[in-house]
Amino acid sequence: MAYHVDFRDVQFNVFDFLNISQLLHYPAFSEQNLELYQMVLDESLKFAQKELEPINASGDREGCKLVDGKVTTPRGYPKAFAAFAENGYVSMDANPALGGQGLPHTMRVAAYEFLTGANIPLSMYGGLTHGAAHLIESFGSDSLVQLFCEKMYRGQWAGTMCLTEPGAGSAVGDLKSTATPLPDGTYSISGQKIFISGGDQDLTENIVHLLLARIPGDPAGTKGISLFVVPKYWVSKDGQMGALNDVICTNLEHKMGIKASSTCALSFGESGQCRGILLGERAQGMRYMFQMMNEARLLCGVQGSSVAAASYEHAWRYASERVQAGVNILNYPDVRRNLALCRSLSEGMRALVYYAAFYLDLAEKEKDPVKKARYQNRIDFLTPICKAYCSDHGFKVTELAMQIYGGYGYVSDYPIEQYMRDVKISSIYEGTNGIQALDLLGRKISANQGLFYRELCEDIVNTLMPLAAQSQLQKEVQELKKAIERIGQVLQSFAEQMMSGQKEAPFYHATPFLEMMGHTVIAFLLLHQAMHCESLAKINTENPTFYQNKIHTARFFAAQFLPRVHAFAKTMQDQDRSAFSIIYQA
Amino acid sequence: MAYHVDFRDVQFNVFDFLNISQLLHYPAFSEQNLELYQMVLDESLKFAQKELEPINASGDREGCKLVDGKVTTPRGYPKAFAAFAENGYVSMDANPALGGQGLPHTMRVAAYEFLTGANIPLSMYGGLTHGAAHLIESFGSDSLVQLFCEKMYRGQWAGTMCLTEPGAGSAVGDLKSTATPLPDGTYSISGQKIFISGGDQDLTENIVHLLLARIPGDPAGTKGISLFVVPKYWVSKDGQMGALNDVICTNLEHKMGIKASSTCALSFGESGQCRGILLGERAQGMRYMFQMMNEARLLCGVQGSSVAAASYEHAWRYASERVQAGVNILNYPDVRRNLALCRSLSEGMRALVYYAAFYLDLAEKEKDPVKKARYQNRIDFLTPICKAYCSDHGFKVTELAMQIYGGYGYVSDYPIEQYMRDVKISSIYEGTNGIQALDLLGRKISANQGLFYRELCEDIVNTLMPLAAQSQLQKEVQELKKAIERIGQVLQSFAEQMMSGQKEAPFYHATPFLEMMGHTVIAFLLLHQAMHCESLAKINTENPTFYQNKIHTARFFAAQFLPRVHAFAKTMQDQDRSAFSIIYQA
Repeated sequence: MAYHVDFRDVQFNVFDFLNISQLLHYPAFSEQNLELYQMVLDESLKFAQKELEPINASGDREGCKLVDGKVTTPRGYPKAFAAFAENGYVSMDANPALGGQGLPHTMRVAAYEFLTGANIPLSMYGGLTHGAAHLIESFGSDSLVQLFCEKMYRGQWAGTMCLTEPGAGSAVGDLKSTATPLPDGTYSISGQKIFISGGDQDLTENIVHLLLARIPGDPAGTKGISLFVVPKYWVSKDGQMGALNDVICTNLEHKMGIKASSTCALSFGESGQCRGILLGERAQGMRYMFQMMNEARLLCGVQGSSVAAASYEHAWRYASERVQAGVNILNYPDVRRNLALCRSLSEGMRALVYYAAFYLDLAEKEKDPVKKARYQNRIDFLTPICKAYCSDHGFKVTELAMQIYGGYGYVSDYPIEQYMRDVKISSIYEGTNGIQALDLLGRKISANQGLFYRELCEDIVNTLMPLAAQSQLQKEVQELKKAIERIGQVLQSFAEQMMSGQKEAPFYHATPFLEMMGHTVIAFLLLHQAMHCESLAKINTENPTFYQNKIHTARFFAAQFLPRVHAFAKTMQDQDRSAFSIIYQA
Repeated sequence: MAYHVDFRDVQFNVFDFLNISQLLHYPAFSEQNLELYQMVLDESLKFAQKELEPINASGDREGCKLVDGKVTTPRGYPKAFAAFAENGYVSMDANPALGGQGLPHTMRVAAYEFLTGANIPLSMYGGLTHGAAHLIESFGSDSLVQLFCEKMYRGQWAGTMCLTEPGAGSAVGDLKSTATPLPDGTYSISGQKIFISGGDQDLTENIVHLLLARIPGDPAGTKGISLFVVPKYWVSKDGQMGALNDVICTNLEHKMGIKASSTCALSFGESGQCRGILLGERAQGMRYMFQMMNEARLLCGVQGSSVAAASYEHAWRYASERVQAGVNILNYPDVRRNLALCRSLSEGMRALVYYAAFYLDLAEKEKDPVKKARYQNRIDFLTPICKAYCSDHGFKVTELAMQIYGGYGYVSDYPIEQYMRDVKISSIYEGTNGIQALDLLGRKISANQGLFYRELCEDIVNTLMPLAAQSQLQKEVQELKKAIERIGQVLQSFAEQMMSGQKEAPFYHATPFLEMMGHTVIAFLLLHQAMHCESLAKINTENPTFYQNKIHTARFFAAQFLPRVHAFAKTMQDQDRSAFSIIYQA
């Protein structure tokens, strides 16, 4: 169909707003430069358009198939994944000593906007493989790293995350998979895992499952869980692939979307022949897995953001061409408003996920411990927002775009309905958005008395206030300030409720709290970007439309979404508990 | 899978809240009684569960097929439609003299909650056939009525609505189809229609297309459009079916959902042999078609409402059974809140569509002209709200239900993902929801200086205020009053903008205006129902849980949704116009 993106806005985020040249001061990036980054953007966009987009719709129609215990992906996928891997898209930000390109996460997220926007399922295989390899690299022994990481980063072997079991979804601690020590130091693995993305496929020679299981005798719950490397084909110490490792794909899910991404039920050790290697220390599995989950959660945000952006690009082009009653529908007020919603949400989510990736770079590379902690706090705080806000609002943008298309949005000849079906999964996997909301309110805010939130507020106020004086967006900045203050009041009221013994009360509002936090952070980012554009427009008179559009977009977002913060806050402050009073019985 | 419904709440709406026995005073219903109505509910629920639900998922998987120009529906559909027709579900509220059952619209809408909730596609064939037959009955000559209506009401022949053309969707006036007078008084029809639901199928002997076309020489735009009866097989004056009437199905759409409902491109008169019969007067086609559209719009509301209700019923059962970390997820605050959202929206939409149908009955049967006008105003006002609010929020409830299910919500083994895909169409067809919003603000409010709105507000205030004094819902009623006042302020500000020459300005906010109007009307209905329950609970002590739940649900809805009215109002009153300033260029 075509993959479109606002490439100028991507460049603006990377080069102007985040000013990625700041990263070049860190030793890890000292041999890189802006020309390289520009090339990465150019090439990954080209690849997304030429190789990934053309098989996106056909892959959806064809889907994956399970025949004789083996999964085949749709036509064109093995070839495209090989090219994806060869171009280094599995390992853009990975360690160069292990085959990676050593680029900033920011660059990877920007490139993944294109790769994901053009084809979610294919990019998922790459994203998971990176996450699994990075986990082995971070916590594995040298020999494990040598055996697996480079082959995975090069996309020769793929990786998976094996957490979920039939009775253990969000409650990972309830898992039943076991790992029994064998005399040779490996473990005999036994268990059933479900919803495993890329659990089997025909894209790579081998698949390296990272599996959570309990060693018999270890404590119940999440504290007793260890992490194991369980390759589909056993890998001997010299790196040679051996026999099948008693991992069987017992089912392939039929899903609403991402049909070209295999979602498998895997049975480990049905014949008692499945072996795994302990990764890192015993009973530290959950801690390790969180690294991979956090990485995957940021990519969920990218999925939402990139599908939103792609849908928006299609929608405004369609609206510009579609004539009704002699007028381009672009000129109808209702369409115009829907388009501005799509645009402001897309640009806002792009700003958010790039900003988060940039802070991830800063947190990893910074040496100064005070700064480093602050950067890390920021990325910890933003991760659940990126994941949940962008997936939910990515879906929302597909809904708005579908309304702009009318009947054409609902049929498969146009791209919107697939975007809608594909992006829905991002609200569910890697921890449902409800789990993200609890993470934000419980771990990221309550657990440290709101420190991360206060740091963000300080930064917002310190950044915007000095700029606001000479900006045309003063009114919007004032509204942002009121929203921040209102959230502060809500948090105060939550704290009081918790101190008065109603410990669960705030969590009742976790989901709308995350949403209002997302509106506020995005309003900040868009207003900050708009003020940056006010300055740039004075120097650079070449493309005034781009700068003007950014200002209008920020203003629109503030006008539409900041009032909603107060609506959510009112509901939270009113302390209505009627949802708990409803009795459910058949 | 199973079709569940809160049958007690359906009964409460029909018998307690709306007190349908009021209708028995009208001559048309004087031979009916409450036992009959109870039987209609019992039987239609049983039919929905036994005959329609079992083929809903299989019909989705199989879809319709176009082979050699003929459409076949999925296995089981012809048999199920025959039973549907035989049981009188096409003609529940139709004229008994023409094979109908003469029941109130209220009863039809209640029964359609089950029929639609169990199987949207199948009920669509029935709904459209009724609408087409009713149009012929209302505006056709005696001979047309005799030829077509009874066969259609009995479901022997089906009906369609042929409006949309490739270049004329929302702008019906741009259509290119022509109808040229023939010597025998019929017309030669020529044109292309797209997105025709039930345009071809294998359920009925004949298909009666109601087609909009222009007689050459008639004015451009909607004013020159006439309506024609164009049967698939010609029908001679003695009622016998003749030869094929040169109507060809040229394409079958592949859609995101409602796959068992055929969506066809039809070519009329490719060989110059297609004949049609003028329905009613020349150039009155749009006026006539609005009757069918209004009826279809109410059914869109039923689709949204019934899918929401069915999804909610599945979601709470799932949550009651699903254990995570040793606890039913029903007890997690976030799940509890999502369930209460699903519940309150479902109950609210049910209340709305039944209420609208009840007013339709009153408007049709009332003889007192003052009362009749007021009833008609109410249904005119509520139609776009039913259509747009219920379809959008029906979809929203499927989204919430999917989050409760987690991964299981996304796979086809569970019902939610199909509900989501199926109900999406209701926001698009029969006039997109953007069109509904313009209808509400332009025709239903602005055009009569807000009369319909003022009448509704008077009724709300006069109904609730006397009850509020002795109710536990006083606070919520006060919040409702504030919301109504706020909407009044918004309308005032719209009026001022229009008087100052900004005629299009209000329409920019049409969609959120409809949404906030919907929140408000539903808050009224749920609060009114809750107060009714407060009274009933004093008399009837048998099932206190039902009454208590209704009170909690109303309170929850008010706490969640009334604050949003003020958020929307603030955006509208701030008069931000930045969406119009954004320039779109590739």
